[in-house]
Amino acid sequence: MEKITVLLGDRSYPITIAANLFDDPTSFWPLKPGDRVMLVTNETLAPLYLNNVRLILEQADIRVDTRILPDGEQYKSLEVLNQVFTALLEGSHGRDTTLVALGGGVIGDMTGFAAASYQRGVRFIQLPTTLLSQVDSSVGGKTGVNHPLGKNMIGAFHQPASVVIDLNCLNTLSARELASGLAEVIKYGIILDGDFFDWLEINLNALLALDSAAMAWCIRRCCELKADVVAADEREGGQRALLNLGHTFGHAIEAHMGYGNWLHGEAVAAGMVMAARTAERLGQFTSVQTARIIDLLKRAGLPTNGPSEMRAEDYLPHMLRDKKVLAGELRLVLPISIGAAQVQSGVAHDIVLAAIEKCIVNPTF
Amino acid sequence: MEKITVLLGDRSYPITIAANLFDDPTSFWPLKPGDRVMLVTNETLAPLYLNNVRLILEQADIRVDTRILPDGEQYKSLEVLNQVFTALLEGSHGRDTTLVALGGGVIGDMTGFAAASYQRGVRFIQLPTTLLSQVDSSVGGKTGVNHPLGKNMIGAFHQPASVVIDLNCLNTLSARELASGLAEVIKYGIILDGDFFDWLEINLNALLALDSAAMAWCIRRCCELKADVVAADEREGGQRALLNLGHTFGHAIEAHMGYGNWLHGEAVAAGMVMAARTAERLGQFTSVQTARIIDLLKRAGLPTNGPSEMRAEDYLPHMLRDKKVLAGELRLVLPISIGAAQVQSGVAHDIVLAAIEKCIVNPTF
Ligand SMILES: NC(=O)c1ccc[n+]([C@@H]2O[C@H](COP(=O)([O-])OP(=O)(O)OC[C@H]3O[C@@H](n4cnc5c(N)ncnc54)[C@H](O)[C@@H]3O)[C@@H](O)[C@H]2O)c1
Ligand SMILES: NC(=O)c1ccc[n+]([C@@H]2O[C@H](COP(=O)([O-])OP(=O)(O)OC[C@H]3O[C@@H](n4cnc5c(N)ncnc54)[C@H](O)[C@@H]3O)[C@@H](O)[C@H]2O)c1
Ligand SMILES: [Zn+2]
Ligand SMILES: [Zn+2]
Repeated sequence: MEKITVLLGDRSYPITIAANLFDDPTSFWPLKPGDRVMLVTNETLAPLYLNNVRLILEQADIRVDTRILPDGEQYKSLEVLNQVFTALLEGSHGRDTTLVALGGGVIGDMTGFAAASYQRGVRFIQLPTTLLSQVDSSVGGKTGVNHPLGKNMIGAFHQPASVVIDLNCLNTLSARELASGLAEVIKYGIILDGDFFDWLEINLNALLALDSAAMAWCIRRCCELKADVVAADEREGGQRALLNLGHTFGHAIEAHMGYGNWLHGEAVAAGMVMAARTAERLGQFTSVQTARIIDLLKRAGLPTNGPSEMRAEDYLPHMLRDKKVLAGELRLVLPISIGAAQVQSGVAHDIVLAAIEKCIVNPTF
Repeated sequence: MEKITVLLGDRSYPITIAANLFDDPTSFWPLKPGDRVMLVTNETLAPLYLNNVRLILEQADIRVDTRILPDGEQYKSLEVLNQVFTALLEGSHGRDTTLVALGGGVIGDMTGFAAASYQRGVRFIQLPTTLLSQVDSSVGGKTGVNHPLGKNMIGAFHQPASVVIDLNCLNTLSARELASGLAEVIKYGIILDGDFFDWLEINLNALLALDSAAMAWCIRRCCELKADVVAADEREGGQRALLNLGHTFGHAIEAHMGYGNWLHGEAVAAGMVMAARTAERLGQFTSVQTARIIDLLKRAGLPTNGPSEMRAEDYLPHMLRDKKVLAGELRLVLPISIGAAQVQSGVAHDIVLAAIEKCIVNPTF
């Protein structure tokens, strides 16, 4: 078992990582006998895990209500969020209730925002079930829903009381979703920790085989790395921006291809190669380093080129519309070595175009 | 002009109170040339004040978009809130935008919650236009919307960057809404400040005549009193509960009569008399003190008895359903003198019933 504490003063909380955690009532600290819970999940996860978690909690004398939401990013909306409030009010849940999110990032973000807003804030526990949500959304306190005119536009910062990661969940996750999570894992290595990147090169096969010890350590390290960034910089700003490596390029792919056709991690994987190529052209990164990144992404089953439907010119309009852009100037996270990155403003458009070009002329995926 | 600062560390903010503030661009600190604003108001207030405020801001080189919402407590909902998000996104407002609420508590609560949630939090300025919102909702940072199953059930704590109270607004407010605000004013005197209660007895006529100097001082004192309570106790708990004097009884009236038939302040006025009568029966308050309260409320044009449609027994079920109730036990805010009150648990039901009875047998309103 791996356990870390995300340090945020009086809102610090533990992340526990191991197999079989959902079979052990003590996993669900700080819940205690007599507490009430609203367990929120989706239609895909309910048949797999809901009864198990519910029974374990009920055996510990916790009163459990449940709400099963439809599955999909398109349901991460204010309307579906309202269903959670309705369930809470129909069940007469008070300020002392706890919302428990059982699912990936969609369920986590929505349930977290419901917890932030219900009676102006109640307790919240995360049980993330995708690798992406385990290594990313369980740290940082960002919660929210989408608006038809923009993703994640409505939300709150609300820290969970605890995060419980049962590695068994990954057994039912599709290979494609697993790989998508690995893209974010590899990202942490590139931007913050060269030793971790080395470790990933050695242990990638164990991760793909869902080896518990390797996976627990991997998730732990990612959470630590993100927690360090977040603790230093809770409300966004300098450091936190590094977490967007590959994302500005990736968002262009997601937007152009229509959300859902490329998974987020897939788009980020291709985007990280584009960022590496841009850094190469700026003379701050070597092609040998880029080759290591490409190699690791490929082994993880991830794309390292953009979609063949997109030309280099298709990227820029999306990238300039990105939240991180100020006044038409391209601000990009770019690597400076394997294990370090920085935000760079005013990167010349032709350099970026040439870097993207390099990731589409010879499609290898 | 009266000016106070609500002390909340790095979220401290000023409240400025005077006539003609909306005609002076410097009132709208911290807005500065080049800033963007989304001005939110309702259909009643738009023809009265919107153009004026918009022009003054535009003259100060601030880019103003506006959103006019329907008027009424029934529109304080997640659906109408979403209209504000749509307007923000359609106008491409970024994290550096400022939401400005021009209206009473309904517009203030909704706009504040929109500001708390848009892109996880943007700046917010309040221009409260009812006496109630000037003395109550402009301090404390509570924002939110209603759910069909409960009032104010969805929301956030989000402090404004500044509150600007233009006393001229009160000229167009109906006498009934003005009186409703005075109920909360009188409440502050009873629970926290006997000298202020004395001052109100002397100056009530000046307030009813909307004398600017008297009104500015009155609003200032109420904001100070609430700010002191809130600063000591930002997230609810002991002290803050005192602000609910008369409210548990009052909510019973509002709920039984159907929301909107009795104005909130009217129900609170009758409720405060019921609380005083309860305190009398507990031997901690005198009938002479109650008479002073009744006299002042009557002069303000407020009811001092419950509605003739309600019997004493009609109150208890509502009161026991109140948020402030734990496990069937009545917890009430009761006065102990004019200028001091306390929260009391386990008040015997028959004492409460007898106190209510005393406020319905001889209807005087
Ligand atoms: N809050 C944050 O900091 C943060 C960070 C990153 C991403 N996000 C958000 O997270 C969301 C993406 O998260 P995601 O990738 O987890 O997507 P997701 O929640 O949509 O899950 C992906 C799919 O896998 C299914 N699934 C989840 N766990 C499973 C399991 N154990 N077995 C079988 N199927 C399973 C889901 O039902 C879904 O169909 C986005 O909305 C994104 O905005 C938030
Ligand atoms: N956030 C808080 O701490 C807090 C505190 C108390 C009350 N509230 C909330 O405030 C709301 C009640 O506020 P309210 O009493 O201001 O009601 P309101 O906002 O509905 O205003 C009452 C009526 O007066 C009209 N009006 C407002 N200003 C006017 C003016 N200057 N001239 C003419 N008409 C005017 C409005 O259009 C409305 O029809 C409730 O929703 C309540 O929950 C919040
Ligand atoms: Zn990502
Ligand atoms: Zn009130």
